[in-house]
Amino acid sequence: MIETMESSARSQHISSRFDEDLESVRARLLRMGGLVEEQLRRSLAALADADRALAGDVVRHDGEVNRMEVEIDGECLRILATRAPAAVDLRLIVAIIKAITDLERIGDEARKIAHIALRLAALEHPVDRYRELRHLGRLVERMVHEALDAFARLDVEAALQVPQDDLQVDEEYESIQRQCMTFMMEDPRQVRRMLDVTWAARALERVGDHAKNIAEYVVYMVHGQDIRHTRLEEIEARLRSRSGGERP
Amino acid sequence: MIETMESSARSQHISSRFDEDLESVRARLLRMGGLVEEQLRRSLAALADADRALAGDVVRHDGEVNRMEVEIDGECLRILATRAPAAVDLRLIVAIIKAITDLERIGDEARKIAHIALRLAALEHPVDRYRELRHLGRLVERMVHEALDAFARLDVEAALQVPQDDLQVDEEYESIQRQCMTFMMEDPRQVRRMLDVTWAARALERVGDHAKNIAEYVVYMVHGQDIRHTRLEEIEARLRSRSGGERP
Repeated sequence: MIETMESSARSQHISSRFDEDLESVRARLLRMGGLVEEQLRRSLAALADADRALAGDVVRHDGEVNRMEVEIDGECLRILATRAPAAVDLRLIVAIIKAITDLERIGDEARKIAHIALRLAALEHPVDRYRELRHLGRLVERMVHEALDAFARLDVEAALQVPQDDLQVDEEYESIQRQCMTFMMEDPRQVRRMLDVTWAARALERVGDHAKNIAEYVVYMVHGQDIRHTRLEEIEARLRSRSGGERP
Repeated sequence: MIETMESSARSQHISSRFDEDLESVRARLLRMGGLVEEQLRRSLAALADADRALAGDVVRHDGEVNRMEVEIDGECLRILATRAPAAVDLRLIVAIIKAITDLERIGDEARKIAHIALRLAALEHPVDRYRELRHLGRLVERMVHEALDAFARLDVEAALQVPQDDLQVDEEYESIQRQCMTFMMEDPRQVRRMLDVTWAARALERVGDHAKNIAEYVVYMVHGQDIRHTRLEEIEARLRSRSGGERP
């Protein structure tokens, strides 16, 4: 009897230490998410305001994002090795391992936008301060925020909203591409600038894709099945069939 | 004594079943890699030969790549949950979970190239059959093959070759971009076609990045440390300092 109580207390002790581990790694993921959101915000501001100093900040901070990825990855490995989690706990760890890859890539895209901002700052700044890009940027920032928020709260309904937002992102992205193409055809002197606008739009569109991936991991954690290429794609296909075909 | 022998036999039995699991999932990863290589090869052939039927094949087979990713991912989760692997075995499973994501994205890029091939096939086919893209394609195909081969043989030296090849890919990619920009400036009627060539080059450049990721996982599996953002980047930085700056 005493032995049973002791062993139960011991397993509870292990389990609570395990919970602490999980909580700690989850908190670190969200801190990394916060930093990545900040990087994205700054890169877009640098673009809109032709702010070279800010663009330089983004490039410098990219290493920090990368370090966080490596640290969290190592922590997840340690938890897998020492605690051998099962079921939902295991899926949480694997989802974190996947999500940090997407966060790191969002950081990469922010760095690319910062490099584009540096190049564009050398040209005459347009009066509309790249209005379309700013608009697309806001949509994409919201997607990243929603995906991280759904991850934090394990909220499947909120996660399923993210791919729907992505449809709007795709529409805006395609509209920017068409516009750039028209400008380039009309005025060859605009080619260089318009290609950079095109690249920035592409980077933002990819950020949206990564946000969608993170949202998918939420469903995977909670429901224990991989909905990628299935449920979300069905939803998307249904919504997409109302608008256009596949983008390049 | 008998008990010890029995328990040793039992643990050997478990361990050999574990090895079978590992071997099976590794074999499936390599099959998925083979399919992805084939998709890439076909998408490039469709582009070079304006072969719509072949491009359609690539688009149709993309679902197969996605299904393989989901299956292998599920198998890895099952192994983590039931076998609780440690050390190098654990790193192998995590590396596979990461590598299938990159393979799936290479498949996505092949599908994008197939879509571009379909659009370009509607235009007059150039006599050089997109020579630069074919050349870049061959470089990138080699990288994917090398990365998968290094993964199969856990060969760190071979894996470290892949990021070096990526430098050549980046050079070719930038040269194509500059060329496209020049053509667009000289002849606005070329804008549409040149943008598609630009997108195809971009897709190939991303395939190279994914191959580099896969090569990095090999080092991570064998050495048990995450070299991303460290050793490979140092190597690259050293090599890159001989050529140019960062691409957009």
